[in-house]
Amino acid sequence: MYDILKNINSPADVKNLNAEQLKILAADIREALFNRLTKFGGHFGPNFGIVEATIAMHYVFNSPQDKFVFDVSHQSYPHKMLTGRKNGYIKDECFKEDSGYTNPEESEHDFFNVGHTSTSISLATGLAKARDLKGGKENVIALIGDGSLTGGEALEALDFAGSELKSNLIIIVNDNQQSIAEGHCGIYHHLAELRRTKGTAGNNLFKSLGLDYIYEENGNDIQTMIKVFEKVKNINRPIVVHINTQKGKGYKLAEENREGWHWCLPFDRETGQWKVKFPAESYTSLARDYIMNKAAQDKDFVVITPAMPMTAGLTPDLRQKLGAQYVDVGIAEEHAVAMASGIAKAGGKPLVVTNATFIQRTYDQISQDVCINNNPVTILLNYTSFDGLTDVTHLGIFTIAAFSNIPNLVILAPTSKEEYLNMLDWSVNQNKHPVMIIMPGNMVTSREADKDYSRLNTFKLEQNGEKVAILALGDFYQRGEELAEKIKSEFGFAPTLINPRFACGIDEQLLTDLQKNHQLVITLEDGILDGGFGQKVAAFYADKDMRVKTYGLRKEFYDRYNPQELLQQLGMTTAQIIADIKKENI
Amino acid sequence: MYDILKNINSPADVKNLNAEQLKILAADIREALFNRLTKFGGHFGPNFGIVEATIAMHYVFNSPQDKFVFDVSHQSYPHKMLTGRKNGYIKDECFKEDSGYTNPEESEHDFFNVGHTSTSISLATGLAKARDLKGGKENVIALIGDGSLTGGEALEALDFAGSELKSNLIIIVNDNQQSIAEGHCGIYHHLAELRRTKGTAGNNLFKSLGLDYIYEENGNDIQTMIKVFEKVKNINRPIVVHINTQKGKGYKLAEENREGWHWCLPFDRETGQWKVKFPAESYTSLARDYIMNKAAQDKDFVVITPAMPMTAGLTPDLRQKLGAQYVDVGIAEEHAVAMASGIAKAGGKPLVVTNATFIQRTYDQISQDVCINNNPVTILLNYTSFDGLTDVTHLGIFTIAAFSNIPNLVILAPTSKEEYLNMLDWSVNQNKHPVMIIMPGNMVTSREADKDYSRLNTFKLEQNGEKVAILALGDFYQRGEELAEKIKSEFGFAPTLINPRFACGIDEQLLTDLQKNHQLVITLEDGILDGGFGQKVAAFYADKDMRVKTYGLRKEFYDRYNPQELLQQLGMTTAQIIADIKKENI
Repeated sequence: MYDILKNINSPADVKNLNAEQLKILAADIREALFNRLTKFGGHFGPNFGIVEATIAMHYVFNSPQDKFVFDVSHQSYPHKMLTGRKNGYIKDECFKEDSGYTNPEESEHDFFNVGHTSTSISLATGLAKARDLKGGKENVIALIGDGSLTGGEALEALDFAGSELKSNLIIIVNDNQQSIAEGHCGIYHHLAELRRTKGTAGNNLFKSLGLDYIYEENGNDIQTMIKVFEKVKNINRPIVVHINTQKGKGYKLAEENREGWHWCLPFDRETGQWKVKFPAESYTSLARDYIMNKAAQDKDFVVITPAMPMTAGLTPDLRQKLGAQYVDVGIAEEHAVAMASGIAKAGGKPLVVTNATFIQRTYDQISQDVCINNNPVTILLNYTSFDGLTDVTHLGIFTIAAFSNIPNLVILAPTSKEEYLNMLDWSVNQNKHPVMIIMPGNMVTSREADKDYSRLNTFKLEQNGEKVAILALGDFYQRGEELAEKIKSEFGFAPTLINPRFACGIDEQLLTDLQKNHQLVITLEDGILDGGFGQKVAAFYADKDMRVKTYGLRKEFYDRYNPQELLQQLGMTTAQIIADIKKENI
Repeated sequence: MYDILKNINSPADVKNLNAEQLKILAADIREALFNRLTKFGGHFGPNFGIVEATIAMHYVFNSPQDKFVFDVSHQSYPHKMLTGRKNGYIKDECFKEDSGYTNPEESEHDFFNVGHTSTSISLATGLAKARDLKGGKENVIALIGDGSLTGGEALEALDFAGSELKSNLIIIVNDNQQSIAEGHCGIYHHLAELRRTKGTAGNNLFKSLGLDYIYEENGNDIQTMIKVFEKVKNINRPIVVHINTQKGKGYKLAEENREGWHWCLPFDRETGQWKVKFPAESYTSLARDYIMNKAAQDKDFVVITPAMPMTAGLTPDLRQKLGAQYVDVGIAEEHAVAMASGIAKAGGKPLVVTNATFIQRTYDQISQDVCINNNPVTILLNYTSFDGLTDVTHLGIFTIAAFSNIPNLVILAPTSKEEYLNMLDWSVNQNKHPVMIIMPGNMVTSREADKDYSRLNTFKLEQNGEKVAILALGDFYQRGEELAEKIKSEFGFAPTLINPRFACGIDEQLLTDLQKNHQLVITLEDGILDGGFGQKVAAFYADKDMRVKTYGLRKEFYDRYNPQELLQQLGMTTAQIIADIKKENI
């Protein structure tokens, strides 16, 4: 087992292998991928497809003097195995040592911590520019997938590299004919034409931007790839090396269902069945059902996603059913949001769905194209919670801080199934405000909720009490309920419990009323404190007689943490908050 | 004077004119442009160049049923004159009625309030998509300049339109061979090749993305443009109409100096001399001198700008002198920042310069590419102040709220020439932190300052006093000085005056120390309160015995306001703050 791989401790070890051994190494890498992915999960298809090219890259180039930048780093596992980190794949007890993304803290062979797409060419041009300033001669290589190419940052960088950087830069376009979901947009079709013509198509996007270009169809053949890379090594100008690879290569199920196997949770290798079961009802499934019903009833309704349909449960068959009412713009968040603004302006009812971490990519479009124009776009965000995605590049905890300070944007934080669906429906049907809805991260709960949210920033008084008022936002409402119970049992009085519902502003009337018979206001939020909800409440009371204690996360790039342990560290458990209250003179 | 224009009250009036009258109309429009621009200033070159095409657009299409979207709207003045808003150009007393940008509040012929580039194609695809959902048949036309094409949002939208939108969309590429400064990047050279070959070049970027394409070199001939637009009117698929126009046409000085006349302040028509004089020394000129000196001394230092060199005073001759140490990436903020991260990672010293409002376009790159990786990129921002640019699309007042909540990002707010230069130099030379520097908007003042800012979030106690502590951030430090004086004279005690210097966090030790002999903390900041600096201070004291009063702007899209009147309205003048203090029991 791992006969060759077990002896690979650095790229130098790869260079000593003969052709036969390199083939065995490829098989070893796939076995190691299976070992980690069946037990631990992670990115599947992109890594299985890039094994041979990665071996060839390390065979030909001299990392880390020559510098590799892996776009989004979904396809960096084979590289990690060849650069001293095989244990994260072949030894189960070491899985957690490996971040699953390129990470300079792990290795000098990684230059950036990357988890968002479309960044590699820009980052690589920077490495190349610094090399040129310093008179260096090393190769700089960016590896980018066809899906990532649709992102504005990648397109800007291609445009730049084509004419402004006049020195060595090797852009490997890893064309596995698939984004996360199916590919979309002009580039996707253009790459198909380039494959069909073996790179000789009359029009060539890359050449039109001033880049050199070569095509290689056998991207999964090590010796071919070695020859290709030897040809471009030490080139004195930017070149695109377009290679054709098979996503998921080496696992039949993944080769056949490229979308389903882009990424996986632990699974059974024989059957392909995931070992984790999801509840039948979730906030994702509720979004999915709402979308399908609404679309059937209202022809003005349209769902737009920047390549993240599954974040709203939109499987291929449902997308098919939605027809013209479904738009996947590719990985192009800026265009998704600006286009939604245009749709809203012309009387359509656009719903943009994606993950919270990716909506950051369209901050300016939300501010300028949508909010200055006050167009009624609804943006539904998944994975906003601190206990959702815990990789540093995918945190949702900055969402409220980032967006709640943009004028005109209404941010709704639902606390139950009914509230969530009512907010969605209110938002999609109204025509006065841009709205962002924070999808709850916890289990679905049920509670009666209002249908109309047009009186902005009106908080909901859920339990009327005294002395202490708890403002428990969105996802943390259930923690607020628990805290209220505990205060009652510990202190013998019933506190007030408030469901703010709006994360974008404060209910000044309600906060003023609280001053009559409350001494302490507690805010709970599932996000960072800086720039967030609690600080708005604290600022309101800053020159008034009211103590305020704000509970939330620190402004920090947390990485792969245990959510419950983090709460404890931050002093945010119910028991810790109770202890804090005891110190006050209530 | 204005013989034809004076009778144009809507586009219908244009359609009744004969060829000769249309020519006179073009001359009238140019006279009207001169009238406004010589007296009021505004965008010059783009408007002078687009006169004929705009007349032809309104002659052929039926606005507002057919919908025009003007990219960045620097070239929308002729359109405004033809759609009932000529008075804003021919009547001096009406100048202020016209926003200088497309604005739906002014006219049904405008669909979006736009001032950032590269948005028109996305917005237009949205109008087109809504039309298709509703079964409409109207034309949707986006007019975009060659400079705007380098922005990621525009590239994403081109990519989308090329294959996903299968219905009417007319993208007019107004190629005047100039961005704001000179054009850069592959597209710029590609457009030159297309012009050279009259649109027949072997490689065609637009066609490679799946778009139809036609070229017309006589973009300043009305009858030619009418024929071109008649040909594409009611087309059933997206098409790019590439037209060659002359920026600044009709004013020799502007034709010859396209960069200098992109935009103007009031000027003398005979000489071209601007009527407003700038002080010899400004924070911009200080940046310019710093850059030139540093570049000469340090070969690792490189300035990067997304097409905004003049915001740091970098005139063409200075750019020339900087050589490889100057990079204009085109209007491509995302790439600029990500590339800077790569340069910093490889040991270069990158300084990114642009306007505050445009840095929003690269929020995600600052967070992911730069800050997660903690690469020492310095970003210097101009026009951050509420009394800088007052158009709603160009406000700098959101900068601190937007960026101060991103972990690892150090935000410095200098208060004097010495502090500004020391901060710049410290930031460029250190290698531990990404840094954003807020260029002061007021007159240059002088005061001794520290050289080292490596102890993050340490505030500077400038005047030690009692009872009241004033934290006056950046640009508002001088207001803090004035307030301190006034408190002394009104109340008979000397307050404490603090220069926070850091807008990204608080000095907990200093704030704790203040509790000993202060009852009131006042924060002053040149930006919105929500998510900003004062709220961080208020939150710190929320559960402690200290009153806090935060002064700053409201979370609102202000538009074309008088800065001094706004301060008064917001209760932020020194006299008003003094009155507030009197209400407290000090």
